[in-house]
Amino acid sequence: MIQVLLVHHLGLLRSGLAALLDEAPDMEVKDVPWSGDPGRLRSLRADVCVVDTELPESPNGGGIADLCRHMSSAQCGLLVLATPGRPGLLRRAYDAQALGFVNKDATPQKLREGIRHVAAGRRYVDESLAHDLLRAADMPLTARELSVLSLAAKGATVSEIAGRLHLSRGTIRNYMSAITRKTGARNRVDAIRISQGAGWV
Amino acid sequence: MIQVLLVHHLGLLRSGLAALLDEAPDMEVKDVPWSGDPGRLRSLRADVCVVDTELPESPNGGGIADLCRHMSSAQCGLLVLATPGRPGLLRRAYDAQALGFVNKDATPQKLREGIRHVAAGRRYVDESLAHDLLRAADMPLTARELSVLSLAAKGATVSEIAGRLHLSRGTIRNYMSAITRKTGARNRVDAIRISQGAGWV
Repeated sequence: MIQVLLVHHLGLLRSGLAALLDEAPDMEVKDVPWSGDPGRLRSLRADVCVVDTELPESPNGGGIADLCRHMSSAQCGLLVLATPGRPGLLRRAYDAQALGFVNKDATPQKLREGIRHVAAGRRYVDESLAHDLLRAADMPLTARELSVLSLAAKGATVSEIAGRLHLSRGTIRNYMSAITRKTGARNRVDAIRISQGAGWV
Repeated sequence: MIQVLLVHHLGLLRSGLAALLDEAPDMEVKDVPWSGDPGRLRSLRADVCVVDTELPESPNGGGIADLCRHMSSAQCGLLVLATPGRPGLLRRAYDAQALGFVNKDATPQKLREGIRHVAAGRRYVDESLAHDLLRAADMPLTARELSVLSLAAKGATVSEIAGRLHLSRGTIRNYMSAITRKTGARNRVDAIRISQGAGWV
């Protein structure tokens, strides 16, 4: 029997996904809400943890990366459910050592197949996510540019960003120009829009 | 028997929700992907149409409002599944004459209860959405401010917005200041962030 831990922040969707897995004769499913505390989940022994890439960050900043770290140290493989068109979220899951990647627009068969692969310790990638994975590998922005952009996306001014990152305002302006150019955006607001849509920030 | 039409753009979530409704002895469920063409859905006779408020707009601009119009002219009641914290999307569904409002974080029982109410022609509101509905009633921006903001959110400059809406640049700047003030934002980027988060644009 494969022990599956299903973590989702929205109860109705979680129950629906659990119903799909309940039909599999080789799986036993525990579905739990997302409390923002991966430590608590770790104590629920499981072979595979299924989680949405759009899981909201917990108030203390722990998100999917934090969850991945906890689960893999408990010998539990991670399979993520990805919304197509958001390569940044895929990238974060990949960097956090997720083993399985299933499109939220897939069939239930595919989800079950992915779970069986991850339970056996094998990587599983839904082929319909190939394009997003290529884009994810090709993330145009550096880590520093990403921190500038994510502060800007929260409404911080150039001076505030400069203060937070201990850099000059001119440097922040240069970063913003590089970000705008690299994302193919028309201006700063457009760069934020494009990057948020893709899930980079 | 209540004929339920379940429309969702993500197949795995759609199958999961369908599995929850299949358990109800008084419902017959047809689940269909969202093609962006509500005319096609209308021909599938149903008593209640269940749809996600986050359904993407179709390329020709038709979204949930368009779907509502088509379904209600076919005597089919609309029940929407709402993400908590996004009053703007609730407001759009309300304006489009949706009858049922169920939180995506609800239990399957609540969804089935809501469907039975809507099938009988009665309004149904999940009490956990009360706060969002109050915020939805209180939308701070005028229709004109919303059009300015949604162009700005797509990355248009003040001059471009002025051109598109046949207004002067000074007028657009005044609208942007009013929007920033009314949303309690610190600046233009922050106003876009707040309004998008709430689902106003």
